[in-house]
Amino acid sequence: MILKFTKMHGAGNDFVVIDLVSQRCKLRPRDFRNIADRRFGVGCDQILLVEPPGSPEVDFRYRIFNADGGEVEQCGNGARCFARFVREKKLTAKRVLKVETAGGVITLRAHEQHQVEVDMGVPEFAPANIPFAAEQQADSYRLAVADQTFEIGAVSMGNPHAVTRVDDVDAMDLEDLGPQIENHPDFPQRVNAGFMQIVSENEIKLRVFERGVGETLACGTGACAAVVYGLQRGWLQDSVTVQLPGGKLSISWPGDGQGVIMTGPTAVVFEGTIKI
Amino acid sequence: MILKFTKMHGAGNDFVVIDLVSQRCKLRPRDFRNIADRRFGVGCDQILLVEPPGSPEVDFRYRIFNADGGEVEQCGNGARCFARFVREKKLTAKRVLKVETAGGVITLRAHEQHQVEVDMGVPEFAPANIPFAAEQQADSYRLAVADQTFEIGAVSMGNPHAVTRVDDVDAMDLEDLGPQIENHPDFPQRVNAGFMQIVSENEIKLRVFERGVGETLACGTGACAAVVYGLQRGWLQDSVTVQLPGGKLSISWPGDGQGVIMTGPTAVVFEGTIKI
Repeated sequence: MILKFTKMHGAGNDFVVIDLVSQRCKLRPRDFRNIADRRFGVGCDQILLVEPPGSPEVDFRYRIFNADGGEVEQCGNGARCFARFVREKKLTAKRVLKVETAGGVITLRAHEQHQVEVDMGVPEFAPANIPFAAEQQADSYRLAVADQTFEIGAVSMGNPHAVTRVDDVDAMDLEDLGPQIENHPDFPQRVNAGFMQIVSENEIKLRVFERGVGETLACGTGACAAVVYGLQRGWLQDSVTVQLPGGKLSISWPGDGQGVIMTGPTAVVFEGTIKI
Repeated sequence: MILKFTKMHGAGNDFVVIDLVSQRCKLRPRDFRNIADRRFGVGCDQILLVEPPGSPEVDFRYRIFNADGGEVEQCGNGARCFARFVREKKLTAKRVLKVETAGGVITLRAHEQHQVEVDMGVPEFAPANIPFAAEQQADSYRLAVADQTFEIGAVSMGNPHAVTRVDDVDAMDLEDLGPQIENHPDFPQRVNAGFMQIVSENEIKLRVFERGVGETLACGTGACAAVVYGLQRGWLQDSVTVQLPGGKLSISWPGDGQGVIMTGPTAVVFEGTIKI
């Protein structure tokens, strides 16, 4: 069959978005791999599926598939594109959307100028829940990597993050340091390695080496983890603009037990049809 | 404006093909860069423009733009996709097409099963015309690279090629060797470095490190250069199947003063529209 899709990106994290409310099609892991291939397919980081809701409490079901064909729980940059997509395709007229994901129900708010706000969930600091091999919870930890010791913050945003404050983030050699932190034995499920430069109380520059991927243009959970760590250390004031290689995200956190709010851009790149 | 395009590939060398016969649009170098970007645009190696002919002797004008926005003279994999495109879009019903390019008029023949035949032009062996710093023309040359000496064939197919026969092409470290041959001082305009394994008289395996690009999936001129060199050395019989990482090309060469004939596959990946 001929399937319609939209290519979008959120701060450089790119997606093929497929409306399975208006179109009926059963996609297999092989289809996701083919679609995601940048040369033999459409090319994207993830495929986002818009599906009818499974219950009357939510507006849509939102599913995310990686380029390897596997399903993932959450993607904040994708969630923003999802919200723009369902409104532009007139699948809904609502500005506030409740969406069912594999990681639970999330709320999306469409703002002006194609910005979308996502509640990214409550950060988790207990080492056992990150998971991180520390005897007790602390504001920061010392992590020995090669011949250096890094002072890190350890936070889970549904996935584990180790955040290091540095003076000049552009000077960091992430290709070298990233894998060493990612695979540090104190993080039994590996870790995303973030490097944050504080520009002002309300602005940071951030680069993230993502677990299993490498350095990316815009890691949404990494931005949340870095800001939460910076707020806890007293280096930042709520709310914070995070400059990532792919664009800017705005992060806000009311405090303990509250969800981290991420607001960021969405872009439509092109519309297409592909034979499946 | 909203521009229609088709994403295609020929043995993994991928293209955005734009019909400027039915659509009127002035594209600038910036547009080509945006379209070619694999994350923020459509993504491709080259953009192919289908334009009305400049004279009654030809059927179309065919222009090729690189991802950096610059125009190039020739691309054999692109020419095959061009021929399939103009027929499928019903811009012509002819099977044999005369096409004006920046490198001169070329003839394309559409065969069954989406195979297209391209006359890739007459190979050039005179060292000064490659250009290559050899005192006199020979069947092969010795080239010192790092601590090794390679026996190479030197051929121009409109662009310079150095071809080396090896026993096991998969075992070659192109990332290391490629740049050393490419930038060898005996090739003042640098050179494309090909490594050929002879499978039989009618079949080779080939990997090519392209000048300014790196290893590619399917270098059409590289396949021609390798087969011409193998024919001259008596290792091959006309015609030859060339196995490249991205697919198979069939190469035939009647001999001195004649053009090299390349036949290969074409694929349509998807149809799209983009705002320019």
